[in-house]
Amino acid sequence: MPKNPPESFTPPPNLTRERRGLTVINTGNGKGKSTAAFGTMLRAWGRGMNVCAVQFIKSEKSMYGEQMAAEKLGIDIIASGRGFTWTSKDLSEDESRAQHGWALAKEKIESGEYDVIVLDEFTYPITYGWIDVEDVIECLKNRPEMLHVIVTGRDADTKIVEYADLVTEMNEIKHPYRDQGIPAQKGVEF
Amino acid sequence: MPKNPPESFTPPPNLTRERRGLTVINTGNGKGKSTAAFGTMLRAWGRGMNVCAVQFIKSEKSMYGEQMAAEKLGIDIIASGRGFTWTSKDLSEDESRAQHGWALAKEKIESGEYDVIVLDEFTYPITYGWIDVEDVIECLKNRPEMLHVIVTGRDADTKIVEYADLVTEMNEIKHPYRDQGIPAQKGVEF
Repeated sequence: MPKNPPESFTPPPNLTRERRGLTVINTGNGKGKSTAAFGTMLRAWGRGMNVCAVQFIKSEKSMYGEQMAAEKLGIDIIASGRGFTWTSKDLSEDESRAQHGWALAKEKIESGEYDVIVLDEFTYPITYGWIDVEDVIECLKNRPEMLHVIVTGRDADTKIVEYADLVTEMNEIKHPYRDQGIPAQKGVEF
Repeated sequence: MPKNPPESFTPPPNLTRERRGLTVINTGNGKGKSTAAFGTMLRAWGRGMNVCAVQFIKSEKSMYGEQMAAEKLGIDIIASGRGFTWTSKDLSEDESRAQHGWALAKEKIESGEYDVIVLDEFTYPITYGWIDVEDVIECLKNRPEMLHVIVTGRDADTKIVEYADLVTEMNEIKHPYRDQGIPAQKGVEF
């Protein structure tokens, strides 16, 4: 496409250089859903973009590698969960924490201050019925045009998959816990 | 397991707290192979671990988001390729660059200075026959015990998959280029 195309020039649809925010979903039962999201965040941060993450399962008290890295980088990661505690009979605290996390995420999405927002393990509270998927899609539809949103977690709701631009499924082919009885390794897996 | 177990205490195999370096492969046709590797690198860096990457396709002249981020973080990323130039008839330069990249990677692997090393898009020069997969596996077998090595790229050689501890396949479910004609977005996809 020439630098200054004549006004009558209309590029064919497959050549438009459309720039807009994407909704990205990393789902599936394998590893790499969250790490790919954080890798993307790092890449965008490398380009000087404004990034943040809300984590829906991980607790603010735990110190995961990505939280330690984010702190060093000055990236805002909000952990709204209290860890995997779903064997507990009383899930009401988890539910209200998830809703609180979503309220914070919405604020960040609507603020117009970010280029990339990661909603880490966000599929779970949706699956559990704690957050309304229609509300999520409504919020994504009305978000700032250039904002990229990355959602991670297993079993992504079909409605959000339908709405998303880029959906990747991470599938486990071989896993050290199951196949060799090796425990999770610090730095690599958490 | 108690802190000072009696000498006769032998934990059952599935409870051993074995700590050792893993060989991780991110393969498949979907997105997220490299970004997950860089996310893992970030996580390990967050824990104060020593990390580096050798990129086998990307050119040192290009400025990818992850390269810009790594520069800011003081992480060593060596790009040994010259970009995707495989439509060219003369692949000898690509081949010698790949071999040079592998020589550097081997040095780093053997040095004992790193906790995590990413070999980004390393499957391609193996598939092309430019790097001997047996040599790769030999090097991985003899590497420092605690070193994690992460290999990314499509069509991972079955021999390296067999050797690896953790293998994940990233599969494309929905993609904005193909499905909607949207071009790659800076910061998110490169």
